[in-house]
Amino acid sequence: MIAITLPDGSVKHFDAGVTPMDVAKNISEGLARNVISASFNDETVEATTPLTEDGNLVLYTWNNEEGKKAFWHSSAHILAQALEQLYPGIKLTIGPAIENGFYYDVDFGDKTISEKDLKEIENKMLEIARGKFEFSMRESSKADALDYYKKQGNEYKVELIENLEDGTITFCDHDTFTDLCRGGHIPNTGIVKAVKLMSIAGAYWRGDENNKQLTRIYGISFPKQKDLTEYLELLEEAKKRDHRKLGKELELFTFSQKVGQGLPLWMPKGAALRERLENFLKKAQKKAGYEMVVTPHIGQKELYVTSGHYAKYGADSFQPIKTPNEGEEFLLKPMNCPHHCEIYNSKPWSYKDLPKRFAEFGTVYRYEQSGELHGLTRVRGFTQDDAHIFCTPDQLDDEFKKVIDLVLYVFGSLGFENFYTQVSLRDPEKPEKYIGSLENWEKAEKAIVNAAEAKGLDYKVEYGEAAFYGPKLDFMVKDALGRSWQLGTIQVDYNLPERFELEYKGSDNETHRPVMIHRAPFGSMERFVAILLEHTGGNFPLWLMPEQVSILSLSEKYEKYSQKVLNLLENDEIRALVDNRNETIGKKIREAEMNKIPYMLIVGEQEEKDGTVSVRKHGEGDLGTMTPKAFSELIQQAIKEESKEFNV
Amino acid sequence: MIAITLPDGSVKHFDAGVTPMDVAKNISEGLARNVISASFNDETVEATTPLTEDGNLVLYTWNNEEGKKAFWHSSAHILAQALEQLYPGIKLTIGPAIENGFYYDVDFGDKTISEKDLKEIENKMLEIARGKFEFSMRESSKADALDYYKKQGNEYKVELIENLEDGTITFCDHDTFTDLCRGGHIPNTGIVKAVKLMSIAGAYWRGDENNKQLTRIYGISFPKQKDLTEYLELLEEAKKRDHRKLGKELELFTFSQKVGQGLPLWMPKGAALRERLENFLKKAQKKAGYEMVVTPHIGQKELYVTSGHYAKYGADSFQPIKTPNEGEEFLLKPMNCPHHCEIYNSKPWSYKDLPKRFAEFGTVYRYEQSGELHGLTRVRGFTQDDAHIFCTPDQLDDEFKKVIDLVLYVFGSLGFENFYTQVSLRDPEKPEKYIGSLENWEKAEKAIVNAAEAKGLDYKVEYGEAAFYGPKLDFMVKDALGRSWQLGTIQVDYNLPERFELEYKGSDNETHRPVMIHRAPFGSMERFVAILLEHTGGNFPLWLMPEQVSILSLSEKYEKYSQKVLNLLENDEIRALVDNRNETIGKKIREAEMNKIPYMLIVGEQEEKDGTVSVRKHGEGDLGTMTPKAFSELIQQAIKEESKEFNV
Repeated sequence: MIAITLPDGSVKHFDAGVTPMDVAKNISEGLARNVISASFNDETVEATTPLTEDGNLVLYTWNNEEGKKAFWHSSAHILAQALEQLYPGIKLTIGPAIENGFYYDVDFGDKTISEKDLKEIENKMLEIARGKFEFSMRESSKADALDYYKKQGNEYKVELIENLEDGTITFCDHDTFTDLCRGGHIPNTGIVKAVKLMSIAGAYWRGDENNKQLTRIYGISFPKQKDLTEYLELLEEAKKRDHRKLGKELELFTFSQKVGQGLPLWMPKGAALRERLENFLKKAQKKAGYEMVVTPHIGQKELYVTSGHYAKYGADSFQPIKTPNEGEEFLLKPMNCPHHCEIYNSKPWSYKDLPKRFAEFGTVYRYEQSGELHGLTRVRGFTQDDAHIFCTPDQLDDEFKKVIDLVLYVFGSLGFENFYTQVSLRDPEKPEKYIGSLENWEKAEKAIVNAAEAKGLDYKVEYGEAAFYGPKLDFMVKDALGRSWQLGTIQVDYNLPERFELEYKGSDNETHRPVMIHRAPFGSMERFVAILLEHTGGNFPLWLMPEQVSILSLSEKYEKYSQKVLNLLENDEIRALVDNRNETIGKKIREAEMNKIPYMLIVGEQEEKDGTVSVRKHGEGDLGTMTPKAFSELIQQAIKEESKEFNV
Repeated sequence: MIAITLPDGSVKHFDAGVTPMDVAKNISEGLARNVISASFNDETVEATTPLTEDGNLVLYTWNNEEGKKAFWHSSAHILAQALEQLYPGIKLTIGPAIENGFYYDVDFGDKTISEKDLKEIENKMLEIARGKFEFSMRESSKADALDYYKKQGNEYKVELIENLEDGTITFCDHDTFTDLCRGGHIPNTGIVKAVKLMSIAGAYWRGDENNKQLTRIYGISFPKQKDLTEYLELLEEAKKRDHRKLGKELELFTFSQKVGQGLPLWMPKGAALRERLENFLKKAQKKAGYEMVVTPHIGQKELYVTSGHYAKYGADSFQPIKTPNEGEEFLLKPMNCPHHCEIYNSKPWSYKDLPKRFAEFGTVYRYEQSGELHGLTRVRGFTQDDAHIFCTPDQLDDEFKKVIDLVLYVFGSLGFENFYTQVSLRDPEKPEKYIGSLENWEKAEKAIVNAAEAKGLDYKVEYGEAAFYGPKLDFMVKDALGRSWQLGTIQVDYNLPERFELEYKGSDNETHRPVMIHRAPFGSMERFVAILLEHTGGNFPLWLMPEQVSILSLSEKYEKYSQKVLNLLENDEIRALVDNRNETIGKKIREAEMNKIPYMLIVGEQEEKDGTVSVRKHGEGDLGTMTPKAFSELIQQAIKEESKEFNV
């Protein structure tokens, strides 16, 4: 008998040789139907692997990352088998699971394949899947394994085996197919119900461009046809919502080869959008007691030596800026904190003055390799909605709660309703890794956990994930397509107050060090706008839209009346424009819809005569006829409803 | 007989040997009383120099720069004579007129003098002045001149003479004193009625620190005692209004040695002030059809090679920023124009789209030697209230007028009522110096002059002062102390559109180059705030004040009522604060006055009982008792009266 401990802590006893699948069946038939993979004592095993000793067992289904990995890894085996059947003589190399699906790198020899062959391969894969062939692991000696692939003439597998540590080599067999493999499969091929091969690409053997170029086939598979359909729809939708595409269509931002990669230029509509976001946050921050400051985009190299940023980022980032005077060297600022510390240091403080909350939309510069750059999400210059709170250790608890309130207000106002948080604390076994007194750390960690509890956050605690200078709380939002983005961070810092020798006079009349909190609800304006674009597909909340109303005249004859309607709306501070071109009303409506304009007002002879407008709402259609004033009240009410005030 | 041509073009005939003073007497006795210096055929002469040939004569009085120069230069002679009388054996070196007064560098040998000796020297100077000794020039051979100073043992004058080109050496004599001198004096010492020696400093002979250190005595003199009194009062007032002093007292900005010289850090009150100024301009610019853009603070070096800025500023400014990738080099942007050109270039334009007006509060960086830095007026990083207008040549006229309107609105709103303008045009004799077609230059120059005329500007035209890329209009304002500052510039540019290959499609369906206008009404936020501080002494217009109201409670007992008054004012968007400290009301009032807070509300038992506040106005005193609501209306009305809307 062996003792199997399950994740909930319960212990069950079985005969030695029991498989994870047997354990699942013992728990429930429903679970057994869904189990596709397992880990035993933290090692990946098959659902069919006999267990012969006491240990911790975790069962995985499609809903676990580990389950998906096994599913896609097994699908790569099926792809390889299909390819061998369709293209005899090819040489297989490696075929791992990836974030979304799997791939296999193959040496097709003198054969070539193209996108149009993928359908046939998919069909062959589905045929194999329907065979419900079981995956089973088989051990082999290194010599036998080498012998097997040398006979096949597959120099790639030979190289892989030669590089393996001595010991047991394993193969995985299913049907007539076998492959060198470490394990981690689903029970049988029949679980794979839907397959889509996405693309073909070139890939150098072992990623080295001096090696031979292989053919990489990307695919994804699912346990249900419906899942595949949904995935493909999601991909299609994501492509439509790509912020780079929308940013161009909506004329929000552009890039210039001359200015440089990763350095966005905000066009008028984008700059106005950004300013509205900034004003929105400024207003809330003012209520919450923040004060804006303005600091330069460079600082002496010495400043970053003091802060420690130079030691950390110096070599890999933008290099120091030399000057005609040899002695002076500057750096583009990678962070705003050193500047804010120096503002704090410009005058003496008493405990009665604290907390001080310095906020700045501070543009910082960090060098990224050009291959890493991506639209607005990965850039070389970005504006943080930064703030630093300088407070006493006793104020941490309250300040943390206030920052959470602000972050939740921001997310709520921008339509991010789905998010979770991670609390990163010290590794309790390595106290020497961290700066700051034990007492302060305990205070800070307690403050974060208390605040997360008090605010009812969905949080998970990760030990050992704190920075060396303090614990933190990160917000992860899910967008409309279910993708997770890290947005918003709140971080305690004991390090910079030490390095910059920050001080305040306490109620005991002694000198003390304040604690710093770094925080940025948006993270950066660039990244936030990108995520907001992909989340909303450009249909921003009404208060944020570049243009809220488009007045579409049926012909140029109604220009004067259109202008009158425009003036009325502009007086009520509604952002509107007139489309008075000599085009059909159908075309004007289509373009306004494409530009995501929330409301269209159609004006023609009847409207001018009656002093009305025909109202159309984006994505919804006709709302009927009303006076411009009535429409103005309608849209003002709609704006008011969605833009809640921040209440401290 | 010789023919003397006067500045008004009139020609008079005199016997050869006539002096400028004779000519003045011939014109009027009044003029003769005021003439103190002259130039003949563009060379400085004495008022007493006999004229022996035909030529152009200009007579100078105290009101001309040249007249002042002669006055102060002559005063330096008087200082030297006084010093020789008081300290026999000293060695004189050089003694020029400077911007405000004059100095003399003297080798005192083993004697030393200090500030407390200055009064005695002044008295001796006035004694000499009262002697009404005439200045007269005397020619000498180089050998005689050398001989004279060698006998005196004055190696400095010997060195000066040795370095002179061969030819006639001149001395100037008055009373018993003689000095090596090129000329340019007032008729006699008696014109000097008031003298003030300002300070003593060390100065190396010929400015070379390897040479002996001499004693430099700075002084200033005037034709009337009243002028001196006014000058000293002005100096005193300027010291009080020094923006560096006020900036610190009002906690507007600070500098940090760690961040670097010339890189201001804007503290909360300063950042808020700056933001109000920006919002004020943004609002007016929006009405005037400008669109805000946002661009990065760096650009590839190549961008500035294209724009020509690298060739012009590259070597003397912040050096290129290298990156881990050898191929990429960036520059801190010295100007925003290249970025705005690239935004223009991001899409095609038709003549119907123009003018496009891109505005940005763009922070630029230019290296200045540390000796050149001064508070906020001379910095290494500053934010321009920049905009670039892209228009057709035909739109120049109209656009120029619109920009003038905006600049006048800005000056009017900020209390700069005293200003004049300079129109800088081509040197008509050197057309090859300028880029752009003759036709366009004529159009642009006409546009500027027309606009200046149409707007009734006080302008003077300077030929040859245009930049090679276009003509311009500069605004010079006079501050409350009568000092002139260049603020605001409007500049036409044909160069960048060429270098960046900017285009639009004309009504003729052909491709054309737009013209650019650069303009900045403030110039830079830093410099403007500095000038505004010195102009207003910190008493900004009410709408701009960091704090408009201070609520001073008679004791801590009235905290709750003070808070109630504060809430009422804040609801009406009035910037107020409560001074609830345990201090006397006298001290609170004094501090509020020092902090230039426009209104003080005093609250005590009676006020709380009656639901009123006692109102005190900065610099004016008691305004009586009223309800908080009545006060709110009073201040709102005051704000409204001074903040006019911009009307396009």
